Amino acid sequence: MTASPRYLTGDGEGIREFIDKFDVFLFDCDGVLWSGDHTFPGTNETLELLRSRGKQIVFVTNNSTKSRADYQKKLDGLGIPSTTEEIFSSSYSASIYISRILQLPENKRKVFVLGETGIEQELRSEKVPFIGGTDPAYRRDITPEDYKRIAAGDPELLDPEVGVVLVGLDFHINYLKLSLAFQYVRRGAIFLATNIDSTLPSSGTFFPGAGSISAPLIMALGKEPVSLGKPNQAMMDAIEGKFKFDRSRACMVGDRANTDIRFGLEGKLGGTLGVLTGVSSKEDFVTGPTRPLAYLDKLSDLLGSN
Amino acid sequence: MTASPRYLTGDGEGIREFIDKFDVFLFDCDGVLWSGDHTFPGTNETLELLRSRGKQIVFVTNNSTKSRADYQKKLDGLGIPSTTEEIFSSSYSASIYISRILQLPENKRKVFVLGETGIEQELRSEKVPFIGGTDPAYRRDITPEDYKRIAAGDPELLDPEVGVVLVGLDFHINYLKLSLAFQYVRRGAIFLATNIDSTLPSSGTFFPGAGSISAPLIMALGKEPVSLGKPNQAMMDAIEGKFKFDRSRACMVGDRANTDIRFGLEGKLGGTLGVLTGVSSKEDFVTGPTRPLAYLDKLSDLLGSN
Repeated sequence: MTASPRYLTGDGEGIREFIDKFDVFLFDCDGVLWSGDHTFPGTNETLELLRSRGKQIVFVTNNSTKSRADYQKKLDGLGIPSTTEEIFSSSYSASIYISRILQLPENKRKVFVLGETGIEQELRSEKVPFIGGTDPAYRRDITPEDYKRIAAGDPELLDPEVGVVLVGLDFHINYLKLSLAFQYVRRGAIFLATNIDSTLPSSGTFFPGAGSISAPLIMALGKEPVSLGKPNQAMMDAIEGKFKFDRSRACMVGDRANTDIRFGLEGKLGGTLGVLTGVSSKEDFVTGPTRPLAYLDKLSDLLGSN
Repeated sequence: MTASPRYLTGDGEGIREFIDKFDVFLFDCDGVLWSGDHTFPGTNETLELLRSRGKQIVFVTNNSTKSRADYQKKLDGLGIPSTTEEIFSSSYSASIYISRILQLPENKRKVFVLGETGIEQELRSEKVPFIGGTDPAYRRDITPEDYKRIAAGDPELLDPEVGVVLVGLDFHINYLKLSLAFQYVRRGAIFLATNIDSTLPSSGTFFPGAGSISAPLIMALGKEPVSLGKPNQAMMDAIEGKFKFDRSRACMVGDRANTDIRFGLEGKLGGTLGVLTGVSSKEDFVTGPTRPLAYLDKLSDLLGSN
């Protein structure tokens, strides 16, 4: 049984104590720092407070369609000061996993990508060769000829050097790409996903998320991908590998109990902090199965320690 | 515990007895009558034998991309005599379910289709209004404007009269169609699938099946569709509704224990007959959890009663 989380809003001493416990704060973004394209009041002041006390800030995002550089521009556009180095995305996490953790045979190093430019940029930054992705050659209907060529294993269509299929959110998903990804995995390629979020919040409603691009393959293959995004611990390992912190002195901040808070708890971080400006409710945090160490009405309540 | 099935190959008396028990034979097609584009030797003679003894033949297919008329042409092309009236497809089953079973409110009668022309033709045959499907207007990329229009419920993009989303195999699946289907169901539309087969056999290998087109929606919605194909009993009810037979005098013939044989058993048909020319093995039929009443090496072994 998990203990009840401490409610810190308005508790100046509690907040000071809490902040002092950690050197690193990992932030989920949408629902914590902003919602849609609206930055919550006090976001910047709160980040400034933490930075002024020497805390390392890491922005952790499952958004695979943007590279870290793109995402930094997004933060800029929202008026939130950041550096590319502070950003950790699921496409970067997946690229690191492929380049540094997977031991691919010499002749199986190519990645077939279902996804957008963010994945491509991060694979390039890790010097991982890839095909698919935004290549217009794959943005077409399947033809009767394709079925035969795929069945015959035509190397012009099924590159024999592909050893990994990496699936993120692909706004240009089509049956040809799904058929190729399916065949690659059937023929032995490793099945990875940047993340498996079921939905994508946009314009105040929801759209199918990255998980819905993996879903056809999961159904057809009867096999789950290794997901490199939250709450998968491969992402935490990659973050730790890069920032070299003491997990007991790190805190995950998020609005979703079953992803953000779970990510911090399973990563055995020293702390987890829930905020009520996103998906999870007070009830989720206080009586749900996945409870943070502490929670706040909103992130900027951390300013109440002054 | 199910009894062991009777092995009929070479058992002339057993075959005669078996055939005499039934007035109606429901046939799964691929793996029973043919494989790929190769008709098994003796298929026509076996069908002829059954017809000559006054048996009703029904070809039952989960293939939703073809209408019954298209499918009849396919049988023609394979050299198998049939009539359109003998064919029962999942798209026809779905159309009957929508037109005759669902009681849709007056202003919610339109169907948003993810699928090909087979579904459209069968919906037309039942006078069910629909949008989507093969309409080229939906075969395009999603735009930034679309997100806003979908979020705002723009009636030009989200038809307020849509009360059903029907998903079959769609070789032209894209993110726009998935987003619209997702929104329709979120807004209350009934979620139906012609069938949820995970894979599609073609050219001697497999491709993603109709179930892989439902899968993104199942993941994004956290909700399963009602499937109108085998082994769902809505299809059996529709077949019985059309052919008006006594279930105790009907036999389902198929090569897959977990779909065809299950379909017959759950439909409480008098008999189920497995054949070893497709997916399931002798072991599946004899010791598996879903066992037919009898099985044969191949369908044409029924000729051995002469």
